[in-house]
Amino acid sequence: MKKIINDPSTVVAESLRGLELAHSDLLTVVPEPAVVVRVDAPVRGKVAVVSGGGSGHEPMHGGLVGPGMLDAACPGPVFTSPTPDQVQAAIERVDGGAGVLLIVKNYTGDVLNFETAAELAQAEDVEVATIVIDDDVAVKDSLYTAGRRGVGGTVLLEKIVGAAAERGDDLAACVALAERVVAGVRSMGMALAAPTVPHVGEPSFDLGEDEMEVGIGIHGEPGRARLPVDNAEGIVARLLEPILEDLPFTEGDRVLLFTNSMGGTPLLELYLAHGIAERLLADRGIVVERRLVGPFVTSLEMQGMSLTLLRLDDELTELWDAPVRTAALRWGS
Amino acid sequence: MKKIINDPSTVVAESLRGLELAHSDLLTVVPEPAVVVRVDAPVRGKVAVVSGGGSGHEPMHGGLVGPGMLDAACPGPVFTSPTPDQVQAAIERVDGGAGVLLIVKNYTGDVLNFETAAELAQAEDVEVATIVIDDDVAVKDSLYTAGRRGVGGTVLLEKIVGAAAERGDDLAACVALAERVVAGVRSMGMALAAPTVPHVGEPSFDLGEDEMEVGIGIHGEPGRARLPVDNAEGIVARLLEPILEDLPFTEGDRVLLFTNSMGGTPLLELYLAHGIAERLLADRGIVVERRLVGPFVTSLEMQGMSLTLLRLDDELTELWDAPVRTAALRWGS
Repeated sequence: MKKIINDPSTVVAESLRGLELAHSDLLTVVPEPAVVVRVDAPVRGKVAVVSGGGSGHEPMHGGLVGPGMLDAACPGPVFTSPTPDQVQAAIERVDGGAGVLLIVKNYTGDVLNFETAAELAQAEDVEVATIVIDDDVAVKDSLYTAGRRGVGGTVLLEKIVGAAAERGDDLAACVALAERVVAGVRSMGMALAAPTVPHVGEPSFDLGEDEMEVGIGIHGEPGRARLPVDNAEGIVARLLEPILEDLPFTEGDRVLLFTNSMGGTPLLELYLAHGIAERLLADRGIVVERRLVGPFVTSLEMQGMSLTLLRLDDELTELWDAPVRTAALRWGS
Repeated sequence: MKKIINDPSTVVAESLRGLELAHSDLLTVVPEPAVVVRVDAPVRGKVAVVSGGGSGHEPMHGGLVGPGMLDAACPGPVFTSPTPDQVQAAIERVDGGAGVLLIVKNYTGDVLNFETAAELAQAEDVEVATIVIDDDVAVKDSLYTAGRRGVGGTVLLEKIVGAAAERGDDLAACVALAERVVAGVRSMGMALAAPTVPHVGEPSFDLGEDEMEVGIGIHGEPGRARLPVDNAEGIVARLLEPILEDLPFTEGDRVLLFTNSMGGTPLLELYLAHGIAERLLADRGIVVERRLVGPFVTSLEMQGMSLTLLRLDDELTELWDAPVRTAALRWGS
């Protein structure tokens, strides 16, 4: 295993220290249990938006903490759910009296631990609501889930709901909005090469020199099929088709297209793939109104990509465009 | 070779198409010879800032085109200099009557081709000045250079000079400022694993399972030493020491610390390394006033990192903080 680390058992804590030093204008890392919180939390009278999950998907979620997006992120160990007391600590730290919305990716451990934390907080009279995101069309049920997995759509959900909370929407309105986003977002990913989890020390899976895994999860979980490596046209079409069919997305739909690197796929390839996806969507009469291109929901250094489509309307577009200031996403402020 | 591409010979052109579609609010890609230009170029009365070089270092330079940074970028083939006519086309396209500043990384081919383009443009009465950046302390002379290589410091130079041009500095002032930045910036990089150039199809170099290359260039050129893989503490110290000694940077200096991923090193590791660099600098009494952390000067999917230090003063800090709006760097606007 070749990594720039000291000790697999302290990777996350050491990385969080660097994150805090790099972005002390935006966030603070509260230690034990580790929580990344907005530097000005709690924001009185604002719904607080909290997310989290296993580490190894950076910049999600710690790099998405800041005005217009998350109030707190709970980073678990690499590819491992955060604990209930971590989530509870986040809730206590950011609750500004208007309630707390938990954004949970649909993995069994995450759902359970966020739910436990929500109950503990509710017992202390904090108003808590939970939204589970399950945008991955690749597989129904998987290694770590009952039902579909939460993947790339999470970033879009966090941006849009974060903007709604920032403009003063109440908790019920934030929940309704989040449900609308979840209903309208779909993703699918693939990998060319596996990542290595630091405390495991070996690649998460074996792929032959001529193979790719289509429909892969963000923890290297198996997808739909192991296939011979295709060219970019073939790969993009294979990701896009099941997304379009699922919702379905049809002619005249306005969408946000998110072309995501799993980490090890460089921008040179990612923009190339993005261009293909734009063309295939234009051919269908689907209107790409907003884009996000880059490594935002990664799986350590896994080589691969995912596509996410979100159906837009005027309100979602306005919330997407609203100012945001985080380590990874920043505009308009 | 596993890559998300169609044909090695069209990778750059196809990638530029995706870049343009993703960021049509910021930039336009002029075809044949390919140049990435600000969507509102030429900006009348403003010094135009132009850079470029081989592709494969994304987001540098195309992702750095926009208000407050570059007016144009000339993307050569992967790891290959742009042609003189490409640079000349860029100059013609962005010249707003106040002169053009060329920012050139010190590689023999780049220096030659930018110089030829400058002479051609000057023959047509365009005022052109050139600044060569050579911030890499690893080696004096190398595979592709006489003298030191231009690496991570390029992004800092482009940001600061871009801000100066935006506020209305004339060409002579931009050149003087650029010289000040070049005099005060130093970098060094390392790699754990090699990238693969699409038209070559094989890794650029061989590294044993337990080896790292220290002082590596951004094209996989050999550095100072091939050594056993060290932990993060050792790696960061080994990059930082030669940088500090070279200028030298000493107690009380105010600096910008840029912790750069070469592409394949994920943010989890990069922030960890950044935290170590901050601590080592604090131990020396060097004051880190600004930071940049992320993959900005990459070498395709090469696993590795570099550190860059820039000595700051009030003016450089103000120019760093000035609004910028590009695909890769965006704040304050």
